[in-house]
Amino acid sequence: MLVSEPELRTFTQNIFLAMGCSEAHAVLAADVLLKSDLRGIDSHGVARLSGYIRLWEKQRINPTPDIKIVHETATTATVDADAGLGLVVAPFAMRVAIEKAKAYGSGWVSVRNSNHFGIAGYHALMAVEQDMIGFAMTNASPLVAPTFSNERLLGTNPMCYAFPAGKYPPVIVDMATSAAANGKLEIAQRSGKQVPEGWIQNQQGQFTTDPHALKSGGSLLPLGSDHEHGSHKGFGLSATVDILSGVLSGANYGPWVPPFVSFLEPPMNPPGKGIGHFLGAMRVDGFRPADEFKADMDNWIQRFKSASTVDPTQHVIIPGEPELEAELDRMQNGIPLVDAVAKDLNELAVKLGVKTLQ
Amino acid sequence: MLVSEPELRTFTQNIFLAMGCSEAHAVLAADVLLKSDLRGIDSHGVARLSGYIRLWEKQRINPTPDIKIVHETATTATVDADAGLGLVVAPFAMRVAIEKAKAYGSGWVSVRNSNHFGIAGYHALMAVEQDMIGFAMTNASPLVAPTFSNERLLGTNPMCYAFPAGKYPPVIVDMATSAAANGKLEIAQRSGKQVPEGWIQNQQGQFTTDPHALKSGGSLLPLGSDHEHGSHKGFGLSATVDILSGVLSGANYGPWVPPFVSFLEPPMNPPGKGIGHFLGAMRVDGFRPADEFKADMDNWIQRFKSASTVDPTQHVIIPGEPELEAELDRMQNGIPLVDAVAKDLNELAVKLGVKTLQ
Repeated sequence: MLVSEPELRTFTQNIFLAMGCSEAHAVLAADVLLKSDLRGIDSHGVARLSGYIRLWEKQRINPTPDIKIVHETATTATVDADAGLGLVVAPFAMRVAIEKAKAYGSGWVSVRNSNHFGIAGYHALMAVEQDMIGFAMTNASPLVAPTFSNERLLGTNPMCYAFPAGKYPPVIVDMATSAAANGKLEIAQRSGKQVPEGWIQNQQGQFTTDPHALKSGGSLLPLGSDHEHGSHKGFGLSATVDILSGVLSGANYGPWVPPFVSFLEPPMNPPGKGIGHFLGAMRVDGFRPADEFKADMDNWIQRFKSASTVDPTQHVIIPGEPELEAELDRMQNGIPLVDAVAKDLNELAVKLGVKTLQ
Repeated sequence: MLVSEPELRTFTQNIFLAMGCSEAHAVLAADVLLKSDLRGIDSHGVARLSGYIRLWEKQRINPTPDIKIVHETATTATVDADAGLGLVVAPFAMRVAIEKAKAYGSGWVSVRNSNHFGIAGYHALMAVEQDMIGFAMTNASPLVAPTFSNERLLGTNPMCYAFPAGKYPPVIVDMATSAAANGKLEIAQRSGKQVPEGWIQNQQGQFTTDPHALKSGGSLLPLGSDHEHGSHKGFGLSATVDILSGVLSGANYGPWVPPFVSFLEPPMNPPGKGIGHFLGAMRVDGFRPADEFKADMDNWIQRFKSASTVDPTQHVIIPGEPELEAELDRMQNGIPLVDAVAKDLNELAVKLGVKTLQ
């Protein structure tokens, strides 16, 4: 099913309104989800809507949160999200970071008591639009085992760094710190395909190519896959995200991060509140004139784009380039939804009394 | 050869004094190098001394630099290192970051016109000692090819994140963004061993286990090793380090970063000055009371240390743990130097009129 951007946007806003969100929150939450679908990251877009609704039904998402700063200095702050949608909380936190950066050069905000925040890139790009460098990360429900362990103690904990450029689009490094993101696993599960060795281990800690291995005690592997290839580095990056997002804010961390799925209950005796994010913004002109920086960014991009390649048909991909190509294409030609997602969304619409997708 | 910490420290200070460094700079530079040898990162310690001397002889290292802030806001600054030793410039920049953080919550300093800065962990730990979170990264001479390329366009570009804890030692994530650091390659080269597939590619872009492949047009691979296992993520991290260290400061970046070895000339028409670093500090109590944060860090560390493991004899390693164990051991029992390094250092001492190691 191919849905136009305006239709899918209105549909998504209506779902959030039916959940009880304010008009402003519904518009913002839909904007974050649509950005993900537009950019080709289908696992983080409207496919998540029914999961959000189920968490709301269990009162684990608060549609009318009182989001507030609970601690701050000139350039740092902690935000309590009051169990709101991460989709609206993270942009709130990034706006705080940007205002601090305007006044003092940089701004850094940790968030606790939140939920899934969509794609990190959306939030980091808010800084880029102000000629700032954007940082966004979040912890997530535990699926990944640290090096040498067979226990799921970390989420796919993404980190995003975004840099403005001049004539070229911004460079956006937006990546799960696991060898493969969960979305890639879901694609393999749906299509009945095996996954490459190095993405998953079974409960005994052996590589497996079975995409369903997580159901029988398996776990995702950190970036690097095994110790010999640097999985301790992937673990270290994931730990960094967990500490900046969870420990620094007073959210949960490690195995205590609450699950994104409603059929799993949050762990008993959690050390913190909800899940955590970390957002940051630094003014480029806090370091050098923005036009000089952008000229050098263009030179950097141009040099890497023109690098000699192993396969002459496969050029070096600048981080953020494929997502932008998808966005331009889907804005014009519509957003493809796989049948299962389209069916799921329309069942949701009927249940909530919202106009279905045509 | 086993050398005591005080003897190696005095020796190293004397070498820097012979180079023309001030007393204060010689003491500081030796402290940074010794920290590396103590922590078991032999590739970044005194083994580098003769390389520094050769760069000084070629006037590529300035022993009496006029290190200064050339641009700043309340919480950001750019430092021009005047071609000084990175070993003294990076601590200068981190002190600037820490002072800004004391006043405003956070501080961020990019550095241009610098040289090799030793281990990133040394600089990040300066922040940790002030109950701050420390960030340190640097770009480096090009050895790593981006995903799909066979051209060496990036250094092993390390990033370091360091977090204070309570009863446990700090968590220090200090990692090259390549699959394997160059030091590991050098060990294989010296011992005549092959390296695992996934560390290096030959000029044709195929995995090779030959540790000498870099001499015949090969390149190191980003963390993740190949596209299927996320090497685009390692490339993205390396790009992040290159942009924050090189592009943001006005240093060189990508293939223009000058080589660390004196027998290779710096590239023609460089876009910037020297190599670049990026240092940062954030006050923990800018987000929540430091004692609460540290108690949760202890809980985090304890949980990960006690994770169930695949091999019962191999527990989960907390980032920074092995380096601290080495430091405690070597402080007490001395620092082992391989014969080639000991011989090299004593030849250097004779040449510079410095007391040799016994």
